[in-house]
Amino acid sequence: MLGILGGMGPAATADFMQRLVTLRAQMPGVARDQDHLPVMVYADPRVPDRNAALFSGGASPLPMLMHGARILQNAGAQWIAMPCNTAHYWADALADEIGTPLIHIAQAALDAVRAQSTINTVGLLATTATVKSRIYQARGAEFDWLCPSDVDQEAQVMRAVYLIKAGKLEEARVALLLAASALRERGAQTVILGCTEIPLALNQTHTDVPLIDATHALAVRCVGLMAQLQTRLH
Amino acid sequence: MLGILGGMGPAATADFMQRLVTLRAQMPGVARDQDHLPVMVYADPRVPDRNAALFSGGASPLPMLMHGARILQNAGAQWIAMPCNTAHYWADALADEIGTPLIHIAQAALDAVRAQSTINTVGLLATTATVKSRIYQARGAEFDWLCPSDVDQEAQVMRAVYLIKAGKLEEARVALLLAASALRERGAQTVILGCTEIPLALNQTHTDVPLIDATHALAVRCVGLMAQLQTRLH
Repeated sequence: MLGILGGMGPAATADFMQRLVTLRAQMPGVARDQDHLPVMVYADPRVPDRNAALFSGGASPLPMLMHGARILQNAGAQWIAMPCNTAHYWADALADEIGTPLIHIAQAALDAVRAQSTINTVGLLATTATVKSRIYQARGAEFDWLCPSDVDQEAQVMRAVYLIKAGKLEEARVALLLAASALRERGAQTVILGCTEIPLALNQTHTDVPLIDATHALAVRCVGLMAQLQTRLH
Repeated sequence: MLGILGGMGPAATADFMQRLVTLRAQMPGVARDQDHLPVMVYADPRVPDRNAALFSGGASPLPMLMHGARILQNAGAQWIAMPCNTAHYWADALADEIGTPLIHIAQAALDAVRAQSTINTVGLLATTATVKSRIYQARGAEFDWLCPSDVDQEAQVMRAVYLIKAGKLEEARVALLLAASALRERGAQTVILGCTEIPLALNQTHTDVPLIDATHALAVRCVGLMAQLQTRLH
């Protein structure tokens, strides 16, 4: 069973579940409920704000992440996925404490970039916490990284993330399109959507800037791993 | 915390989560992740087929439903919701065994019908198991009930349900529109979509037959109950 540690944010968690179902439904021979993958979601959105924890002395989300992960583990989760990039700042601490393997969202997204062998320069649209904690850059050290300027990071990206959490998708999309275009003009060959809120407002149908959607990459990896496990069990 | 016993089917569960988030986001003062409601989902789609259990000697889903409900309860669920109408055949047995209150989908849908005080005759689009086990009719004895003919029930409704589970939404919609129109021609003043797969293919934008969407009614009730609980805690 796949354990999903969600709620960060709630709409991103529902989006992630929807993607798991859609991806699984596209696999050969999947037509009935019983062909789908068992998942369990622990989504307590009261986990303290991840950006506030890192930058303005807010409470750490780690204790609540641990609590949720233990519940998933006790219920039989063989893997844990967290459809929140920022929370991956605490991913190693969480995995060390819990012992259940965590399917890392940045690793999944970076492998999707690597699958396009011509890419050297990668843009990153993510929360300030994800950008500054180098979750992506440290795991993709072979790439040249481009992030929005400090001003654009706050006025476009972070503003968009909080707009999306408040359900204002159109307004968020305008800001994100500006940020994505600026990264491409500076030389980004692809732009990673490295925050699970972002694809709720922006996807490849809205722009010709090539995008890598980290939520999609994580869902693909989860469905693949679960399918392998099921094959081994049969 | 709301416990969701899902996976029947998986797409309906994701749809239900999405609705909880959307409904909650529409409430006054809800703008941040932390304003959303804590939920937990146990979605093991390997629960035996509900229709097969009732009509063709298939395994009972009850033991797996009990297992899932106990996991939700142990993790702190104060209520359980099952976004599957057919599984409500086992709802009373489940609630008796578990002790955690179950928010009943048919009760929620029927109260939505009652809120429209002019309705006497109600049509029902649901699985054959839901129709025959009288989950709706027994709880709404004051209404006159119309269900599709036995032939239409199988050739239109059940065929549509399994088409939706296989991701074939357009084809399912055609069949469901025929079934809904036939119920109205026979005198139904409203038609309950009493299977959580059905609204994945058919909603009010597709027809002028007045519809009551049981998934929506359940989500409204869950969000309302959870909001009351949170108010009492503060």
